[in-house]
Order: sequence, then C-alpha cells, then structure tokens
Amino acid sequence: MPALDYPPPLQRMIAQIKALPGLGPRSAERLVLWLMQDGGRIEPLIDSLSEITSRVQACDECGFFIERDQECGLCHSTKRNHRLICVVEQAADVLRLERSGAFMGLYHVLGGKLSPLDNITPEDLRIEALLDRVKALQIEEVILAVGSDVEGEATASYLSDLLRAEGLAISRLAQGMPAGGGLDHVDELTLYQALNGRRRM
Amino acid sequence: MPALDYPPPLQRMIAQIKALPGLGPRSAERLVLWLMQDGGRIEPLIDSLSEITSRVQACDECGFFIERDQECGLCHSTKRNHRLICVVEQAADVLRLERSGAFMGLYHVLGGKLSPLDNITPEDLRIEALLDRVKALQIEEVILAVGSDVEGEATASYLSDLLRAEGLAISRLAQGMPAGGGLDHVDELTLYQALNGRRRM
Repeated sequence: MPALDYPPPLQRMIAQIKALPGLGPRSAERLVLWLMQDGGRIEPLIDSLSEITSRVQACDECGFFIERDQECGLCHSTKRNHRLICVVEQAADVLRLERSGAFMGLYHVLGGKLSPLDNITPEDLRIEALLDRVKALQIEEVILAVGSDVEGEATASYLSDLLRAEGLAISRLAQGMPAGGGLDHVDELTLYQALNGRRRM
Repeated sequence: MPALDYPPPLQRMIAQIKALPGLGPRSAERLVLWLMQDGGRIEPLIDSLSEITSRVQACDECGFFIERDQECGLCHSTKRNHRLICVVEQAADVLRLERSGAFMGLYHVLGGKLSPLDNITPEDLRIEALLDRVKALQIEEVILAVGSDVEGEATASYLSDLLRAEGLAISRLAQGMPAGGGLDHVDELTLYQALNGRRRM
C-alpha cells in the first residue's frame, strides 16, 4: 500500500509554493492548507495574479512597472531632470530612492547585477537599453545606485568602463555611516569607507 | 504630486500576499517582484490554484482531502479498523499520524480546536459529524489526538464529555519525553507529565 499523501493537485501546489522565494516546505504546506480551509480564499488570488499578468508590464524605457497602455509617470514627467539618470538593480530600488526624496532625474532598472556564479552576464541586464537612452537623451550624469556587495561593485565598474567613452559624469552612491547609528553598529569596511569619504564641516 | 508607488494591480497583489500566513510586508513585496521578473512564473500558479479549487475537496466523512468524485482511500479501506477513530485538528495531522505507522483505524478531522478568544465554538468544528459517525459505525474507541496546548486540552475535554454518553472508550495521546531528547531539552510541564505517566520496565 503506498504511503498516504495529499491528492496529486495539492502536492503539485505545495511543490510550487515551496519554490517561491522565502518559503520553505513547512510554510508551503501550511499556506496551501490554509487556502483550502475556506473556499473563498483562492479565487481572489487567482483574480489578482491574472490581473497583474494582463495589466502590469515594465516600461520600455526605465524598466519600472506601468499599467498596460498607460504612460510611464517617471519617464514622461516634465518636472524631472531628463539629463540625469540613476541606474538601479531592481524596480523596488526606484521606490526606495523616490521615498528618500533626494532624486528628481530619470531611472533605469537593470533587472539584476552581474554575477558569473549565477550565470548573469551583461546580455541578461538592460545595459544595451541604457546606452541607447544615454545617447538619445543626451544624459549628462549617470548615478550608479547599485548595491555595494561584490556583484554590485562589479556591475558598477563594468558600466563605468562602458559609459566613460560617452564623455559624461559617472557617480556612485556615497558609502558611510547609516543615519542614526553609532560606531558600534557598523562593520569595519563601512567604517573604513566612512573615514575615507569624510567631509569637512 | 502623489508619492510614487507600484501600479494599483501590483499593490493589491502585494496586499493579498501579505495577508497569507507566514508572509510579512517585505517578503510579500519580494515575492510579487520575483513573479513579475519572468512572464512564465505566474501562469503555472494560476493553473494550480484553479486545479485545487476545482478538483480537491474534503471527504464528507473523515474531512481529509480527496480528489473530486473519487472515493476516500481512508474511509473505504477494508484494511483499516472501522471500530476505531482518531480525532485530529487538521488534515495535515492525518499525514503525520500515517507516517508514524502506529495507527490503522479511521480518522476524523475537526477543522480546528475550540478557542473562545478566536470565536471558534463547537458549531465551527465537525463535532456533529463526529457524533453521527461514532453512532453509525458503532465505534468502540475514540482517540483524541488533538494538541496539548490550552485550546487542545479544552477541545479534548469537551469531546470526552460529549462522547462519554455513548459508552465507548475514549483515549488521549500519551504525553512525555520526545524520542531522542535528553532532559535538558524538555520543559518542566513535559517532565512532570513524563514522570506521572511513567511505565514499569
């Protein structure tokens, strides 16, 4: 007699949920059983998943999300500086920078960072599109707002080599102490960079 | 100018994922952005969700999951003892007990446990159905395999009062030391119960 298990459709559902980022086998099983507990829990999920598939897409220019057939509020804003472009890894980074209120130029979402170990090469990122925009928009400064981890540094250095030929200013986010934190909360590399980048008062 | 945010369909999707058990705001956002990264990630999820809605249901008798229009392999097995029934809180508990290999009777899934604080009363659980089955099947012993937390104890005590009138044996899972653990890994209440329930060798 085979060991008892959930019916095959439930098993497949659990396997799929388990493959999502941030979910393990136990939380996947718990989530699926929770969905099954009440007939009304699954329908709204299906509706929303269908809706984001049919109605949300990436802007051809900046790569941030837009609703299908609508203009990108970032790329078409007349209040933003169209000579300044900020390069980020993910769409979520655009929101983070917008919330800081410190930037009023254009954005360019790369869709990741260079990572030979994960087989992510320049062709996998929106680098070609970045070069096209830089030329078409006569960009004066590119801010490389990628992460400061190894892959982020490699991506910044690759892009900066590529962009230097265009004769424009290239900058990187400052590294240093996080706001509101003491020296005891910061690792040595951050302290080293905060010292090196110190500013006169 | 309103603060930038994701398009409304994405915002709604994130809000729904955030409401699922085990997911917080950050992991919900990360999950939804991951789904959007590749057009092929959403469709299989929709398919599986539709499939479990249309093809999986609870067995009318035991409450475990069956595929629609198929017989319950547990309730209709001729190899199981149909005079013995084991009452559990959730469908997942059936699998756990089956994997232990220690039980060959029938199951009855309550669908939760009594919890006045969460407004879960006897009417919300499959207790009426349990009484019907106990009578119809001429059950000789009911094993209350509910949890040993406060709500589990309350549920067990409520069921045992109800069932006593039927003149059958009522039992509860033994409490004691978990397999393979030393005294240092066990709380005081468990030790107290392990001592009280000690068995002569």
